[in-house]
Amino acid sequence: MKIITTIAELKQALQAEKRNEKSIGYVPTMGFLHEGHVSLMERARKENDIVVLSIFVNPLQFGPNEDFETYPRDIERDENIARNAGVDYIFYPQVEEMYGSKPSVTVRVESRTDCLCGTKRPGHFDGVATVLTKFFNIIGPDKAYFGLKDAQQVAVVSGLIEDFNFPVELVPVDIVREEDGLAKSSRNVFLNETERQEAKELYQGLLQAKKAIEAGERDPNQVAQIVENHINMYTSGTIDYVEVYRYPELQPMETLSGHIIIALAVKFANVRLIDNLTLTI
Amino acid sequence: MKIITTIAELKQALQAEKRNEKSIGYVPTMGFLHEGHVSLMERARKENDIVVLSIFVNPLQFGPNEDFETYPRDIERDENIARNAGVDYIFYPQVEEMYGSKPSVTVRVESRTDCLCGTKRPGHFDGVATVLTKFFNIIGPDKAYFGLKDAQQVAVVSGLIEDFNFPVELVPVDIVREEDGLAKSSRNVFLNETERQEAKELYQGLLQAKKAIEAGERDPNQVAQIVENHINMYTSGTIDYVEVYRYPELQPMETLSGHIIIALAVKFANVRLIDNLTLTI
Repeated sequence: MKIITTIAELKQALQAEKRNEKSIGYVPTMGFLHEGHVSLMERARKENDIVVLSIFVNPLQFGPNEDFETYPRDIERDENIARNAGVDYIFYPQVEEMYGSKPSVTVRVESRTDCLCGTKRPGHFDGVATVLTKFFNIIGPDKAYFGLKDAQQVAVVSGLIEDFNFPVELVPVDIVREEDGLAKSSRNVFLNETERQEAKELYQGLLQAKKAIEAGERDPNQVAQIVENHINMYTSGTIDYVEVYRYPELQPMETLSGHIIIALAVKFANVRLIDNLTLTI
Repeated sequence: MKIITTIAELKQALQAEKRNEKSIGYVPTMGFLHEGHVSLMERARKENDIVVLSIFVNPLQFGPNEDFETYPRDIERDENIARNAGVDYIFYPQVEEMYGSKPSVTVRVESRTDCLCGTKRPGHFDGVATVLTKFFNIIGPDKAYFGLKDAQQVAVVSGLIEDFNFPVELVPVDIVREEDGLAKSSRNVFLNETERQEAKELYQGLLQAKKAIEAGERDPNQVAQIVENHINMYTSGTIDYVEVYRYPELQPMETLSGHIIIALAVKFANVRLIDNLTLTI
């Protein structure tokens, strides 16, 4: 495994791989890798000759009151995890390497952002789409891997690739869950013992909704209500949102059909958890 | 020469060329080709194995009061010109092929637009950068050719390629001029006989400024003044602007140094002409 910090060096290395007709799988991250990232790297490892992991805490996607400076960083730990997952190249650029001067162009995300967590993070997805445009052009991957835990990000990236005609296949990877169904997250450690027990009910609520849809329910409000009732009954958390949309367009529907998402955010005392379920009716 | 109207068909054809290690030169146009375009195609022909010409009147770069509907189109004439210039593929998509639904992402040009002609065309360069992002991704050219007649467009494209890390080399092509120095333009026919005689003085004004710089002048205001004086003395036109900037950043300078542009726009009775000169001090 090679660790590369400059764009020029990475392009040179990958051009050599491409001349040898190697397929390239790409996993973009902000580092501080956890099991969700590992599932992306392992999937990329299975499906490609070469796996490239980027570790870059992208200032453009942090709001002025967000935690860019204090976002956790641990490159040595990340190196070990990436090596064990079979990564070939870690691209680990400094901010100056990615944004030399004030950029003269950025990507503006025009839809799929005014719902779910996007409403509270203006400009966040513009920053995500801008840095991915750069990474896609630098790396030229055949496939790019994104976790469905952040389903809104997957939706935005899907639009980015489609509308800008990037020659990249988006591979959405399923949420990794604990044995009891709780979506894995580095934030789960902030749950106290009682909350940790309750937290499994977020996924149970989603499964209740799925069961109702399978039994014929087609009203998105009813589906959301089922999830809300379940969470309110079985947890002490406060619901931030439960929303149901066409996926990946994130458009509201009157009657459920096609590919949809049920997404939720719930606040506990010291942590806010998100989860979702996508299904095709 | 092949004429291709769908993205899928073009990608397939060019993938075959790339597998055979052919280099690809790309000339983006809105059609109604003239000698300026021909100089781009001929340059691309010399420097590449394969030449791709796109003809697409891009609605995204027209303002609400601009002439998208009435913009001149003549594909049969364009075909002949392209064939004679040695083009291999014309990509001629309809609007629906390029913009299927409302795009979820667009490019926002954040600098290099609030001067010269850009001030009067808000959103124009966002549309240019968005459609070029799509074309670059669809075609994957090694080199892309743009005429320096629209030096601001070249500056914006230079920023687009650099800041989004497109693996494309920008080739700016010199302005094609009449024998007396007037920059060629399909709009020159709107000059009456007297104005046509006067119009050569636009370039003469630029050359006067160049001569002064070569003799040691470093004050951008003085340089602009030389051009203005010349145009006011020798033509009946009304100066819209004469501006001097660092190029391609289009930033004002206190003292001229490095790569600069002197750009002008002058209104005659029925037509507004632009011209410019770039030089390195």
